Amino acid sequence: MTRQLHLNAFLMTVGHHEAAWRLPESDPFAHLDVQHYVRLARIAERGKLDSLFLADSPVLWNSVGHRPSGGLEPTVLLTALAGATERIGLIATASTSYNEPYNLARRFASLDHVSGGRAGWNVVTTAGPDAARNFNLDDQPAHRDRYARAAEFVDVSRKLWDSWEDDAALGDKANGVWGDDTKIHPAGHTGEYFQVAGALNVPRSPQGHPLLVQAGSSEDGKALAARYADAVFTAQQTLEDAQAFYADLKRRALAEGRDPDTVKILPGIVPAIGSTQAEALALEEELEQLIKPEYALRQLAQTLKLDPSALHLDRELPDDLPDEDEIEAAKSRYTLIVELARRERLTVRQLIGRLGGGRGHRTFAGTPEQVADAIQHWFDNGAADGFNIMAPVLPSGLEVFVDQVVPILQRRGLFRTEYTTRTLRDHYGLPRPAGVLKSSV
Amino acid sequence: MTRQLHLNAFLMTVGHHEAAWRLPESDPFAHLDVQHYVRLARIAERGKLDSLFLADSPVLWNSVGHRPSGGLEPTVLLTALAGATERIGLIATASTSYNEPYNLARRFASLDHVSGGRAGWNVVTTAGPDAARNFNLDDQPAHRDRYARAAEFVDVSRKLWDSWEDDAALGDKANGVWGDDTKIHPAGHTGEYFQVAGALNVPRSPQGHPLLVQAGSSEDGKALAARYADAVFTAQQTLEDAQAFYADLKRRALAEGRDPDTVKILPGIVPAIGSTQAEALALEEELEQLIKPEYALRQLAQTLKLDPSALHLDRELPDDLPDEDEIEAAKSRYTLIVELARRERLTVRQLIGRLGGGRGHRTFAGTPEQVADAIQHWFDNGAADGFNIMAPVLPSGLEVFVDQVVPILQRRGLFRTEYTTRTLRDHYGLPRPAGVLKSSV
Repeated sequence: MTRQLHLNAFLMTVGHHEAAWRLPESDPFAHLDVQHYVRLARIAERGKLDSLFLADSPVLWNSVGHRPSGGLEPTVLLTALAGATERIGLIATASTSYNEPYNLARRFASLDHVSGGRAGWNVVTTAGPDAARNFNLDDQPAHRDRYARAAEFVDVSRKLWDSWEDDAALGDKANGVWGDDTKIHPAGHTGEYFQVAGALNVPRSPQGHPLLVQAGSSEDGKALAARYADAVFTAQQTLEDAQAFYADLKRRALAEGRDPDTVKILPGIVPAIGSTQAEALALEEELEQLIKPEYALRQLAQTLKLDPSALHLDRELPDDLPDEDEIEAAKSRYTLIVELARRERLTVRQLIGRLGGGRGHRTFAGTPEQVADAIQHWFDNGAADGFNIMAPVLPSGLEVFVDQVVPILQRRGLFRTEYTTRTLRDHYGLPRPAGVLKSSV
Repeated sequence: MTRQLHLNAFLMTVGHHEAAWRLPESDPFAHLDVQHYVRLARIAERGKLDSLFLADSPVLWNSVGHRPSGGLEPTVLLTALAGATERIGLIATASTSYNEPYNLARRFASLDHVSGGRAGWNVVTTAGPDAARNFNLDDQPAHRDRYARAAEFVDVSRKLWDSWEDDAALGDKANGVWGDDTKIHPAGHTGEYFQVAGALNVPRSPQGHPLLVQAGSSEDGKALAARYADAVFTAQQTLEDAQAFYADLKRRALAEGRDPDTVKILPGIVPAIGSTQAEALALEEELEQLIKPEYALRQLAQTLKLDPSALHLDRELPDDLPDEDEIEAAKSRYTLIVELARRERLTVRQLIGRLGGGRGHRTFAGTPEQVADAIQHWFDNGAADGFNIMAPVLPSGLEVFVDQVVPILQRRGLFRTEYTTRTLRDHYGLPRPAGVLKSSV
């Protein structure tokens, strides 16, 4: 069989374009309505996509003025979607900086049970001081500390997920023996950040471990991905950058002693799809016109650690910007934005338009055939194992992708025409972690 | 209208009797199957019950040997049940000692949105060193500290639930103004246990605040209940004790400046129901025979802070037991057990039988009519505003309660025959908290 694409639907409010909510078709309160997400999940499942994904940060951003704000907590929302779908994988972001491993490992194991083995966790360290200030801190921990804690957090979580052997539960009514205590293995973890003594209070879940996703592209982020991630979401603007990232991460995985094929790399793509290219460009243009530049400029200034007055809509970025090393939050996003602006010599207004479309992810306007070509081109040229599909407008952008782009990929033999597997790991062609092996006698 | 009963279905694995899983009818793995709980929730909803409830502690107890162990995390499970039901309230226990307010307030607000205003939170401080050891501690915090943290936790949660005014979201597409930033109120909380700066990232939920439940009956527990609880679950063995508890808590609520009618008191009852009393007693007897006394004795010894060798199955409890004041975990449960044993001069074996049936809650064997009488007797005599129904065997015990006891209570005019309200607060006849009032000009 031809090597197969993996496709993930990244769901966000009424679309990834920050002005999508202003379109006539959009319900500005849809992101608070579980039925909106049920509809999206069913569209994605109709397209036989591997998974859907929800981003997250435990903080209310700056201002609720310019776009749909707040929302439903992702593990809650995914559980609701588990009941409304049958096959599609369900991936939620959750922070290692502002959770405790016992609680989070437990929720993902529970979601894995409830969904029949379809849970995935996007491991993030949560950038920014605002989130830190919701959790007893005055400022965010240093970048390196956040990543060191993240690594230990995943280690503890794995111990907890493996704390029950698969056959620890017996249910022997006649003898009144429900389970075998010798097959329960307390975590017994004492580390730099965590001390977790006990076993999880959830039996081992269908996937053993939920699928682990990583999405940071800083040095620390790539190191974490190479060590732990089953799938990597990444923002890449050019084929060359994507190839370099892909090769680098596969190499790092190998250096960690892993089979590089078990780390699936999925760049984001924000496809504006039209029946002609002109129609697709018109959709992009319509959305760009709806951006409120004053809000966007303020956000950009914050990301770049500048005073808003240092930015002028019709000029390029100022020359004097901090190095990535000086940035403590969202390092890789910072670098991507600066490089994009410099490479294409964008004015602030143009940069805002590009970022409003995909927050640093690659935007692409074209016909279904052109979108399929763009996907295949990267897939065939060592830049991607699949894609993170970020529809600019939801549900319409996902619907047109599923109904018009997916069939082209299927005809080319690049994508499944039916689900043939049950669990999220199976969809991605990944093995089930063995867990604690029975000690041989 | 006659004063109305409130009824809550306390769901636990395949029943509250610890040996229920050994009955021929029971699936010993049902508690890991969301469909089992869906079935229970629909039975409870068929009976027009106010709510259902899930207990919780973030720890795997002692041994998995003698009864169904582990399970699905309650906020995950309740979300799954929200999608499978329409009217019944959904109450989950969650610990204030081992969560962060921002995360937990957010999940309950999300559940309140997803369920259309049916979320409730049973606020617990989580007793015992084993749970503490899963959260970076060597032992549990002192009883008073746990309760002081719980009070502050609820205060912060309320600030977060009120951080959006009800009409903060505008969705004004024409002007590109999604929300009104002046109607967002950051928590700005700095206290002894928590520092939480921001606003919640969930808009105000249908109930404003989820229903708050409290279930500890220690001095600290009663103080917390009087100050915050909308409903109180309590274990009471005799009418006199229940009356005293009821009067005391209503008095305390009044002293807190609250209307005592807005604190609903629900003692637990474990009804073994038969078409004759003899049949009901035979069910109790059958279950008692299935208890493994060696496990139960070990558990009892742990609760009483004794070495297991100090207990003998066919003797009464030893004379020399610690005072409640010396107990740091589950104080009120400790006292209840000791008093029950002393009052009825039970041997350890008999005590184990009683505790195996309802873990300290009142057990009652009888016909549907007798169960209805028992409920009405306490309800009419200042001991209860309703009951926490703890079926010894699930689903059958809940089914017989709903199909045979509820109709009797309905005929007596004591219980609703249809849901006439939408939210959990409405079912309990409680007002929706006002939230932040718009400042008058």
